[in-house]
Amino acid sequence: MAEKITPRLENYPKWYLNVIQEAGLADNSDVRGCMVIKPNGYAIWENMQRGLDRMFKETGHVNAYFPLFIPMSYLAKEEEMAEGFAKECAVVTHYRLKAEKGQPLKVDPTAELEEPLIVRPTSETIIWKSYKSWIQSYRDLPLLINQWANVVRWEMRTRLFLRTAEFLWQEGHTAHATAAEAEAETMQMVKVYAKFAEEFMAVPVLVGPKTEGQKFPGALYTLCIEAMMQDGKALQAGTSHFLGQNFAKAFDVMFTTPDNKKEYAWATSWGVSTRLIGGLIMTHSDDQGLVVPPRLAATHVAICPLGKTEADRAPALAAAQKLAAELRALPREEFFGYEPIGVQIDNDLKTSPGYRFAKHEVRGVPIRVEVGPKDMEKEIPTCIVARRDYLYQVELEPELNHQKKNEVPLVTSAESIVRALKDMQRVLFERAKKYRDARTVTATTLEEFAALFPVKGGDKDEEETELNKLQFVYAHWDGTRETEDMVQKKYKATIRCLPFDGPMEPGTCPFTGQPSARMVLFARAY
Amino acid sequence: MAEKITPRLENYPKWYLNVIQEAGLADNSDVRGCMVIKPNGYAIWENMQRGLDRMFKETGHVNAYFPLFIPMSYLAKEEEMAEGFAKECAVVTHYRLKAEKGQPLKVDPTAELEEPLIVRPTSETIIWKSYKSWIQSYRDLPLLINQWANVVRWEMRTRLFLRTAEFLWQEGHTAHATAAEAEAETMQMVKVYAKFAEEFMAVPVLVGPKTEGQKFPGALYTLCIEAMMQDGKALQAGTSHFLGQNFAKAFDVMFTTPDNKKEYAWATSWGVSTRLIGGLIMTHSDDQGLVVPPRLAATHVAICPLGKTEADRAPALAAAQKLAAELRALPREEFFGYEPIGVQIDNDLKTSPGYRFAKHEVRGVPIRVEVGPKDMEKEIPTCIVARRDYLYQVELEPELNHQKKNEVPLVTSAESIVRALKDMQRVLFERAKKYRDARTVTATTLEEFAALFPVKGGDKDEEETELNKLQFVYAHWDGTRETEDMVQKKYKATIRCLPFDGPMEPGTCPFTGQPSARMVLFARAY
Repeated sequence: MAEKITPRLENYPKWYLNVIQEAGLADNSDVRGCMVIKPNGYAIWENMQRGLDRMFKETGHVNAYFPLFIPMSYLAKEEEMAEGFAKECAVVTHYRLKAEKGQPLKVDPTAELEEPLIVRPTSETIIWKSYKSWIQSYRDLPLLINQWANVVRWEMRTRLFLRTAEFLWQEGHTAHATAAEAEAETMQMVKVYAKFAEEFMAVPVLVGPKTEGQKFPGALYTLCIEAMMQDGKALQAGTSHFLGQNFAKAFDVMFTTPDNKKEYAWATSWGVSTRLIGGLIMTHSDDQGLVVPPRLAATHVAICPLGKTEADRAPALAAAQKLAAELRALPREEFFGYEPIGVQIDNDLKTSPGYRFAKHEVRGVPIRVEVGPKDMEKEIPTCIVARRDYLYQVELEPELNHQKKNEVPLVTSAESIVRALKDMQRVLFERAKKYRDARTVTATTLEEFAALFPVKGGDKDEEETELNKLQFVYAHWDGTRETEDMVQKKYKATIRCLPFDGPMEPGTCPFTGQPSARMVLFARAY
Repeated sequence: MAEKITPRLENYPKWYLNVIQEAGLADNSDVRGCMVIKPNGYAIWENMQRGLDRMFKETGHVNAYFPLFIPMSYLAKEEEMAEGFAKECAVVTHYRLKAEKGQPLKVDPTAELEEPLIVRPTSETIIWKSYKSWIQSYRDLPLLINQWANVVRWEMRTRLFLRTAEFLWQEGHTAHATAAEAEAETMQMVKVYAKFAEEFMAVPVLVGPKTEGQKFPGALYTLCIEAMMQDGKALQAGTSHFLGQNFAKAFDVMFTTPDNKKEYAWATSWGVSTRLIGGLIMTHSDDQGLVVPPRLAATHVAICPLGKTEADRAPALAAAQKLAAELRALPREEFFGYEPIGVQIDNDLKTSPGYRFAKHEVRGVPIRVEVGPKDMEKEIPTCIVARRDYLYQVELEPELNHQKKNEVPLVTSAESIVRALKDMQRVLFERAKKYRDARTVTATTLEEFAALFPVKGGDKDEEETELNKLQFVYAHWDGTRETEDMVQKKYKATIRCLPFDGPMEPGTCPFTGQPSARMVLFARAY
């Protein structure tokens, strides 16, 4: 358990992998760059899906499903897209194997496809091919469609959740009659992502456009949400693209306007992926293992009856079962996704209490309840309610007298637990926000900037372990691609976005001395 | 709308495609055999997923996700699996395209994979490769895992929903310490499928084992659910396989027993797919279009305010909005998947009422509410509640005086609607069951059997349009593969299963005169 987890300060990337392994979130598979998402990890994804899907539907979207395979010629139709994705495509060239007795299985050379198929890296092309037959008139617009799917990008360097060859995501693809409507949709969806990140994941984010150099291939511009990980690196957690008429032109999607003219439709696309799970881990988890905000936890409460023998334990076990039933029967609430509260009873008799507690801690269960024979003998029987975020409570509100373990009457414990779960959601968010804000600085000179992004001879591993050194840095920028590229090359830092809530005053670019319209956000990034 | 739908008696396959098109369920894509599931079709799949997923979790299963790609050598490890699936695999051989300015995009010949990857046709092999590292001791068992995923089988003849190259499904893969436990799981899951088919889809099914010749490659035996379509053909709607130790042996998955011995784990797998949507259509829909059982409908109620002008319509529109709000605010119920009731207000002013009504009918909305100016002028304002299954009510219960359109007071209309939705679920199931039972017969002689499965010179289309001729036929069978193959070849009928609830008496095989243990179920099938 926890002793198997490398402390964050010692080696952050190793800590990250240890948490994933010990919390049972994911495994590497034998297939290059493809991960296995294990039940504990997938449960988080299911809760993310539920929360996001509800928000998409509340904003008028519906789900649909488009083919996994894209004919190679579709990709070629949008030039930037072809350039952007050609280098990382899984290509299907054959449709049959040859299985002959006593012979090894092999690809059947007589079953070659006339046109190779690409496993979708993103679905703009195949979807806009469909939209051509769905859109004739302005009455068919807007088309507000989302897809939950797997996609494949043949990345060379992969890391569980953050960058994998295959990943799960959702991709929204909308079509509109006017540029203004499409732009409003682009903005609406990045705000949906920000709301989801902050309210469900308890991850504070900065929202704003990407630079020209960092936008999506085929987009006119890209809006994004950016989060700070505990090591001070940035994670792009979601993007929303205004695609203009690029895809409508590539696939000849025209509609008749109310005054009977023909016009190309306007497009957006937007997506978040299983990468969010990586961001969740690196925002909240600690050296004891996984920490999950209650709104995304599948198991909210682990109840541990104590007592050495079955007989010793019987009253506590009965109390545990009663409490579990009571929690599960509570009215369905929006906070819990209209699902029953997730409760596990851990009645393991063979394992020591300490080991049992650590197991739930490492797996990120928000609340652990302990109830033993002595608690049951009291006039008013009690139990211990232990919060997974105890240290964070203390850190965030040192002036309050937080208890590591709260003793509460059993009879009102369900109430206490629900209150604690909701409070934990708040504490995680506020603490993460405080952490990020405390590590966001401004650099006005080149020397200041250089000191904030030190480079040690280019040894990648050494860079990555500089926990407590990296920060989010606001600095001026002359607005050119050249300067952006130079900074990336020299300081390994990129412009994460031009935050809507960032400083807006003009100034001077520290790299070139040219005028700068506003400060932008630099960071090292995943 | 309806006039675009070929009547079932005229051409059943054409009717099926017309319903799919007019109800907006799916499209063929340009990618051979891959379909686009449109929003109205995908909404049904989402409700199927929700219902099934809840049942899986109630029986102790958790979800996970395994890679899309399977190394070719994995498939080869289980001989029957290699033989069964090699002929229909999509094979990834390259991982990059070459995009050169001015040149057409092409596969990069320098980016060939060392080992080809198969797009999963089913995931036993890749999952059991993972299980090898997850299973060490009997304490790790049972492993009860389900996956929601897309799979690809390169079928030569495809048909929307029923047989497509790519389809969506769930696949359960469990590992157990004993054969008995695995067999109990195999049985439990086919029963879950039967319950889902009957209670959610309102589709009556027969449950039983497949013959040796029809079982899943790699299974010791396969249990299935079989449904009758309106044309008398059978549809295999779900399967549950007892895999014995085949996959544990292929991937060397051994566990330590309580008495410290090593044994191979026992396996099951089970799945249902988007094919269920095809079965749903062909069980309930009619010449007016789609009919959806309320438990699977995304939109339950379409409220149509009437009145020629905006002013005429104002009171009715206000009443419609009030009713919609009332319906949406009802307490969440299991019947509706703990989701709010789906309500649409159709306030189209430009289209005639008849056309508007037909639109909701063709799309399968269970209840249409009409409310007009005259209804609102009454002392107690009323509305019309029209059920999509009106004809079925009459057909099922001719002795009752069913009203095509029920006039009810607006003030109690929400209640009436909920009651009607629940009654509709019952009516659809009972009618489908009556229909199937009336078309299930027994053949004791060869002549009887031959007359039940006429073959007209082998013209496939002519066969398919014989609506009202095909039936489910119980007949004896000598238990041999030879006889089964002969019947399939000569009469185009297959043994669908050996229903647990079928006749159990021994007798004589009409095809060979040999003894028969029991009658089995023959049918033509999709």
